[in-house]
Amino acid sequence: MIIVMKPGVGREQIEQVINKISAAGLQVHLSEGHTRTIIGVIGDKKTIAQLQVEVFPGVEKAVSITESYKLVGREFKREDSIVDIGGVKIGGGQLGVMAGPCAVESREQLLEAATAVKVAGAHFLRGGAFKPRTSPYDFQGLAEKGLKMLAEVGQETGLKVVTEIVDVNAIDMHCEYADVLQVGARNMQNFQLLKVVGKANKPVLLKRGLSATISEWLNAAEYIMAEGNYNVILCERGIRTYETYTRNTLDLGAVAIVKELSHLPVIVDPSHGTGRWQMVRPMARAAIAAGADGLMIEVHPNPEIALCDGKQSLTPSNFNEVMNEVEKFAQLMGKKLR
Amino acid sequence: MIIVMKPGVGREQIEQVINKISAAGLQVHLSEGHTRTIIGVIGDKKTIAQLQVEVFPGVEKAVSITESYKLVGREFKREDSIVDIGGVKIGGGQLGVMAGPCAVESREQLLEAATAVKVAGAHFLRGGAFKPRTSPYDFQGLAEKGLKMLAEVGQETGLKVVTEIVDVNAIDMHCEYADVLQVGARNMQNFQLLKVVGKANKPVLLKRGLSATISEWLNAAEYIMAEGNYNVILCERGIRTYETYTRNTLDLGAVAIVKELSHLPVIVDPSHGTGRWQMVRPMARAAIAAGADGLMIEVHPNPEIALCDGKQSLTPSNFNEVMNEVEKFAQLMGKKLR
Amino acid sequence: MIIVMKPGVGREQIEQVINKISAAGLQVHLSEGHTRTIIGVIGDKKTIAQLQVEVFPGVEKAVSITESYKLVGREFKREDSIVDIGGVKIGGGQLGVMAGPCAVESREQLLEAATAVKVAGAHFLRGGAFKPRTSPYDFQGLAEKGLKMLAEVGQETGLKVVTEIVDVNAIDMHCEYADVLQVGARNMQNFQLLKVVGKANKPVLLKRGLSATISEWLNAAEYIMAEGNYNVILCERGIRTYETYTRNTLDLGAVAIVKELSHLPVIVDPSHGTGRWQMVRPMARAAIAAGADGLMIEVHPNPEIALCDGKQSLTPSNFNEVMNEVEKFAQLMGKKLR
Amino acid sequence: MIIVMKPGVGREQIEQVINKISAAGLQVHLSEGHTRTIIGVIGDKKTIAQLQVEVFPGVEKAVSITESYKLVGREFKREDSIVDIGGVKIGGGQLGVMAGPCAVESREQLLEAATAVKVAGAHFLRGGAFKPRTSPYDFQGLAEKGLKMLAEVGQETGLKVVTEIVDVNAIDMHCEYADVLQVGARNMQNFQLLKVVGKANKPVLLKRGLSATISEWLNAAEYIMAEGNYNVILCERGIRTYETYTRNTLDLGAVAIVKELSHLPVIVDPSHGTGRWQMVRPMARAAIAAGADGLMIEVHPNPEIALCDGKQSLTPSNFNEVMNEVEKFAQLMGKKLR
Repeated sequence: MIIVMKPGVGREQIEQVINKISAAGLQVHLSEGHTRTIIGVIGDKKTIAQLQVEVFPGVEKAVSITESYKLVGREFKREDSIVDIGGVKIGGGQLGVMAGPCAVESREQLLEAATAVKVAGAHFLRGGAFKPRTSPYDFQGLAEKGLKMLAEVGQETGLKVVTEIVDVNAIDMHCEYADVLQVGARNMQNFQLLKVVGKANKPVLLKRGLSATISEWLNAAEYIMAEGNYNVILCERGIRTYETYTRNTLDLGAVAIVKELSHLPVIVDPSHGTGRWQMVRPMARAAIAAGADGLMIEVHPNPEIALCDGKQSLTPSNFNEVMNEVEKFAQLMGKKLR
Repeated sequence: MIIVMKPGVGREQIEQVINKISAAGLQVHLSEGHTRTIIGVIGDKKTIAQLQVEVFPGVEKAVSITESYKLVGREFKREDSIVDIGGVKIGGGQLGVMAGPCAVESREQLLEAATAVKVAGAHFLRGGAFKPRTSPYDFQGLAEKGLKMLAEVGQETGLKVVTEIVDVNAIDMHCEYADVLQVGARNMQNFQLLKVVGKANKPVLLKRGLSATISEWLNAAEYIMAEGNYNVILCERGIRTYETYTRNTLDLGAVAIVKELSHLPVIVDPSHGTGRWQMVRPMARAAIAAGADGLMIEVHPNPEIALCDGKQSLTPSNFNEVMNEVEKFAQLMGKKLR
Repeated sequence: MIIVMKPGVGREQIEQVINKISAAGLQVHLSEGHTRTIIGVIGDKKTIAQLQVEVFPGVEKAVSITESYKLVGREFKREDSIVDIGGVKIGGGQLGVMAGPCAVESREQLLEAATAVKVAGAHFLRGGAFKPRTSPYDFQGLAEKGLKMLAEVGQETGLKVVTEIVDVNAIDMHCEYADVLQVGARNMQNFQLLKVVGKANKPVLLKRGLSATISEWLNAAEYIMAEGNYNVILCERGIRTYETYTRNTLDLGAVAIVKELSHLPVIVDPSHGTGRWQMVRPMARAAIAAGADGLMIEVHPNPEIALCDGKQSLTPSNFNEVMNEVEKFAQLMGKKLR
Repeated sequence: MIIVMKPGVGREQIEQVINKISAAGLQVHLSEGHTRTIIGVIGDKKTIAQLQVEVFPGVEKAVSITESYKLVGREFKREDSIVDIGGVKIGGGQLGVMAGPCAVESREQLLEAATAVKVAGAHFLRGGAFKPRTSPYDFQGLAEKGLKMLAEVGQETGLKVVTEIVDVNAIDMHCEYADVLQVGARNMQNFQLLKVVGKANKPVLLKRGLSATISEWLNAAEYIMAEGNYNVILCERGIRTYETYTRNTLDLGAVAIVKELSHLPVIVDPSHGTGRWQMVRPMARAAIAAGADGLMIEVHPNPEIALCDGKQSLTPSNFNEVMNEVEKFAQLMGKKLR
């Protein structure tokens, strides 16, 4: 951390800051210029992160140089992490595709969707059994019944199951039925949930929060890894901006940045990211071209009767076309899709 | 809901939409113009909210006319709600002020802060025992020890205690020690937590999410009320925008809107809302002038050694000046502060 | 400027940066720590602003310490600036209120509005003769005919005239008819226009851009002052955020910041800032409480037949009530309204 | 336009609205339901756009169904527009690449950059002679001298020249030296400038404003086309969001939308869109995959001594690699790069 003192501050104000730094067990590197004094702080990252010096009257600015996360960073691990989900891998040249309906509605609907996405080449069946909805009066999901259907249909079709967990007390139930635990955008900073999935013995799919910065997102992943669970997959799903034409603004630049800062695999959800099924295809292509390690796509056998997010769901046949096209882009990127 | 069909769509596509509406038990009001057909949907609010028609190829746009919340709305209750916390009231002409440190650090710190804010006229002691922090390595709070201190110091000083709950399993513990349960900005759409505090027998302070719309915020309150807890206080605490000079952008217009749409009391947190203690005073005045029912302000006996948010904390003496000034603005608004 | 080098960079990379700084005629203050080297840059503000060092491979971060504006800053002038418009003052304890229709529609409309706002206590007549509209097919204003009406009606009622200039070539025409030249939000970074009004012999009202940072806004004012025109009034008019309930998000915190950073007077436009006439009253009160030096409010004799922005215009009688209420808040702030 | 009346409004309030609509020469389509009355407005798009009914007390909401632009829309022209710049085409399967330095600094610098980008396969030389800069003290460009250099170097290398116009009075000068007139992001709603380039006999490159919606952007293009100039190329260059890691958030979804709504070609500027040269390569690939018709990329022979935007400029050798990679993605899209 670099602390810039205001021009012309006296000895006493500088000492005040130095004392606080020393008291925290950190080292000081003093640099006195003609007009300003600059204080460098050296020592343990975590201790520095907790230092609060901007409150001192003599301080103009405190600039942190290093990010507060550690385990998620490239400095901690140079090579790309590969997350292995019972033999199915994501990262390091292998793309992973998660597809299925927004919500599990019935065994028939789920099986039809699963069969179709499996044929098209998807590796994971996605489907919500517990749905976080803006209004308490919206469809909230089939709960455990839905989880069971997911597990059964996953087994039948040979697809791994990924589903969202919203209740910390349901962790055992989710671990029983699911292969990957999804933490949704609204819960990205539900730190209690992050700690719980961090202790679980299952890979975690961590969606980026609605208005989370890259740094907050990586720190959320750090919460999970700090508990011992290193199998984290990140998922960009669009951020909230002023634009109303799309549901969210898909931030593909975030994919490029995350690949630079972190070793974790990152996939893209163009369905939520745009909110319009017509845009899923071009955005799926663009995601792969930007360097994503996979895709999460909503597919429903009959989008027009879907209980949620029908507007952004692909039909099985459209999904198949997307997969065929994506495969060509994957090859150009030197990656394997199917 | 109004459904606008694309120009020139055939009979069949219109029927498709009508069938879906009818199947949901809703009524149709058809209006066929020269170039476009418009379909009005009449019936139960909740059912309409679940209707998904934009997926049909013939539909250009679906516009919902009514908000999905009910209990929080002015239509449900005309007059302002007054929340009574053991005799201390907020709403309906009585302002409520919550003040204290960001985090409970020690008994001494807390008692000093509490004594000072009580003298200055605050009604509630605020203080975090469980802190949701961006990094897992930041100070996470004193946990139950902190809650106990809050309860004791509250008792000693005659202040009601408001503190944030982050763990659904800690609900009993919080109900034992606190007078008001705070749901923080990051948890505004942690629906599991909303349901739990909705079942609790304590008033709830619901902070607006970092990038929550007014509608999402009111729907979050609806989650709590739908569980039977009608004692909800809203709190505007700044939203995330592109501006980096302040920590957040305090949206005082939201106060005016919420007073129009809802009967619930709404208070303002200028400390988090700006992130700079120098701005707390003008923004506290402005909040009252905008119609707020109270304030939440961070006060620390020694901001420069605070373990969190020192940068935005007032000293006791500054807080006292703010209270004196706010009182005059309260009088102009026909409201009672002390 | 502080330049933070990456950990472990060699001598050569440090020299590269130092050479560039020296070549620009700036001084270097080198500080070599155990793990990192930090380079302070000292010298002329403008030259530093042009320095580009982040392109060097050894540089991790470059942090500018000082703002690039000079004339608008409190360091340049400690006391509040008072802008005098032919005897009518804004700033330094005197509030200025600008009111009138969005667009000049006819002599009758304008005179009716002007008479009403004069009676209520406004000092300036606002009205657009050249309207910047999103669509080329929207009403674009009465042009010079409108300007003439403004001048005549201003004369008749004893109100100073403020109107927006959109065309650099119309500067003489505007100087002939108007007392204050308004630069609109969309043109805040139309630097050509800023230079032209900077050379004019008329005070300038500079609206904040739709998504302009505080720093960009003050730099836009610097453009005007750098040309010699020191009579600049700033106007906060709402920024663009994700919230759709209001037309814009009125950023009253910006008022408090600008009063801290700059000596220039700053007024608030709650009409554009919210887009809803019902919110003008609470936001006008809040603006004064936040420290604003005045208000700009849309008033139309018959909002329901207005050619633009009727939705956000007050009737004369509502405006009168706002003024009466604002006066009390002005007194509390120790300022004079009428 | 659909006008939704409040529940329970009387005959008189409905008549009031109908009268206003009729007075504007528009037709009314009345639809009276059990609880609400809905009024459809039929007639001339432009007239409807000017209708203001939300000001009437009985109106709850007015929803516009059609966009106000016409000439830029797919309804006006089904097939993709191809803009022909002296034989070099953009659109309809032919990609166009514009490359060169942010600012023209010297003849040597420009020639070196131009030669390199020509060899790599670019079609246009970009370079700023008049630079719109946030601070008046930043480098403002070489002005006419810079334009002349561009023209000469363009001639020498066989590249078409694209450069930004910021001054309406310099239109003749720009038309003399440039092949494409660029309207920058800050001037996207400088309507005076849009009208001037709309009358010019040169193709226009219209950058998206910093926080412009898709609709505002297309309306800005409509301003140009409404003056008779149909040769408009759109350019997505990143929007302003809360994220600070990148300079802007590149909105590639906008490319997909614009291709759906409009027949105009749209290119992408990953240099400004991200502000970091390391991200140009993945974002250039992603742009092509999203369906862009071309790219605008900053290339400087020595980014480390660039007078502006060095941080986001590619070296000639990096640019060459990007072009080679982009070509493969172009082929997959069935488009021609070189």
